Amino acid sequence: MILVLAGGVGGAKLASGLAAALAPGELVIAVNTGDDFEHLGLHISPDLDTIMYTLAGIANPDTGWGQADETWNFMASLGKLGGETWFNLGDRDLATSVLRSHLLSRQSLSTVTAEFCRRLGIVHPIVPMSDQPVRTIVDSDEGELNFQDYFVRRRCRPKVRGLRFEGAEAARPSPGLEAALAAPDLAAIVICPSNPLLSVAPMLALPGMREAIGAADVPVVAVSPIIAGQAVKGPAAKLMGELRMPVSCVGVAEWYGDLLTGFVIDASDAALAGEMDAKVLVTPILMRCDADRLRLACEVVDFAALLGRNG
Amino acid sequence: MILVLAGGVGGAKLASGLAAALAPGELVIAVNTGDDFEHLGLHISPDLDTIMYTLAGIANPDTGWGQADETWNFMASLGKLGGETWFNLGDRDLATSVLRSHLLSRQSLSTVTAEFCRRLGIVHPIVPMSDQPVRTIVDSDEGELNFQDYFVRRRCRPKVRGLRFEGAEAARPSPGLEAALAAPDLAAIVICPSNPLLSVAPMLALPGMREAIGAADVPVVAVSPIIAGQAVKGPAAKLMGELRMPVSCVGVAEWYGDLLTGFVIDASDAALAGEMDAKVLVTPILMRCDADRLRLACEVVDFAALLGRNG
Repeated sequence: MILVLAGGVGGAKLASGLAAALAPGELVIAVNTGDDFEHLGLHISPDLDTIMYTLAGIANPDTGWGQADETWNFMASLGKLGGETWFNLGDRDLATSVLRSHLLSRQSLSTVTAEFCRRLGIVHPIVPMSDQPVRTIVDSDEGELNFQDYFVRRRCRPKVRGLRFEGAEAARPSPGLEAALAAPDLAAIVICPSNPLLSVAPMLALPGMREAIGAADVPVVAVSPIIAGQAVKGPAAKLMGELRMPVSCVGVAEWYGDLLTGFVIDASDAALAGEMDAKVLVTPILMRCDADRLRLACEVVDFAALLGRNG
Repeated sequence: MILVLAGGVGGAKLASGLAAALAPGELVIAVNTGDDFEHLGLHISPDLDTIMYTLAGIANPDTGWGQADETWNFMASLGKLGGETWFNLGDRDLATSVLRSHLLSRQSLSTVTAEFCRRLGIVHPIVPMSDQPVRTIVDSDEGELNFQDYFVRRRCRPKVRGLRFEGAEAARPSPGLEAALAAPDLAAIVICPSNPLLSVAPMLALPGMREAIGAADVPVVAVSPIIAGQAVKGPAAKLMGELRMPVSCVGVAEWYGDLLTGFVIDASDAALAGEMDAKVLVTPILMRCDADRLRLACEVVDFAALLGRNG
């Protein structure tokens, strides 16, 4: 069984490749909830939704968030009534947030997510990283900003000075994540090409998380979210620069440090392979289509298996 | 100034006629909130919305509720996730309920309603009957049912044995309704052709309401919701029969009793005019189009003015 740590778009792409490559029971997908927030009284879980929609085959292929074949009449009416419209919620997408918010009054985020996945026909478990609230706070040149204020409302324009994960110290890994980390058949942990600072760091900030990963004693393989010094999507490169990290796959590997057994970098970064402590797999990692996702997923699984045998 | 007591569809029709006939400052519309309920964690106010949408010119002309040019993708997605779908919420309509629910955590229903009306360009004040929750409970042969369970989920099929208005004894008329009742320039109170038992009774159940109407000492004119023994829309006739009231405009007049100064009945019921204690205006009261609404509104205003001069 492979445990995947995933954020949003990059995570969804590799997770969907792994979901296609692996049988039920061979994959658990743990998802960042540091981007979650309360908006219009609703509990919004952007990364959980992106992963869930992607695996259900209903994701919007153009935006990286929301559902395909979406309409926007809720937003249009909301604007006419004077409601805040900086965060887009499509009519279909909204059902997830409304029903989740309602159910959270008596169920955990894990339970609600499992039920949504069952209804959407997703066979691999998708688990939130935690059932307790963890909120990414961005310290910027405009002061502290809630993550979605920084990411959506301010479009990542403020210069970032630091990040903290409010609530992380009091949170626990979710039951599904804890069980996966302790599972006897756990063979590898795969860290998706998600933003390490924004999508993976909140998971690693959970108490006991790094220890549990170490205790699992399995290969930990990350796929670089940076290709040729650029983020495939999102603010990873800008953020790494502002935090004075090398803006390259090397910077990502250094940030993960000795957590990593193996690191997967793009063919265009082959020249940097020697600069990392982890074992490196060099292969095309840009996922443009389902075939790319499946091929990369298989290579990552094989790479992890190889590292497991050699370790 | 005329104060209108209104429920849903019938109320919306006459209220829109009055809104067209009267200048800003000459009309206050107080709306039943006994039909309000909590659904999916949202505060739904069906009658307020119907009146508001009608006066804003965005009401769905076919259904009697919801907005025109509506889409249903929220409901479709909600169903896929296993959410309850017995109560229809269109994508546009939903914005009202989501934003209202969010704002109610820090504002009164009166304040939220006033802001929505301002945004929608409605010049006449629409006020909820109360800012405190009043919930119509239907005692039926299937036991006690919340109003929307009876009205929408069970489509008015259970046989009704009685009605009560939970919370009414602890509620107060809203500030806007109280102010209108006490206004020196109040010239008449018009009770719309709404269901007397379901839409008007909750308002009359508010503490001090009947006394305030009496103290206002102005003509109280109701328009019959029953024409030739049939309700124009909704369960009024069925309900009156089940509660052993005469199913006719006479039964309505008897139920209102000495609250009424004048009563407006349909031309087809002219033969019944002599059976009522109130002064009666006989005129076509079925409102099929905007012209019908305006014509009836003008006749009602003139009738009330006549009763005022004679009283």
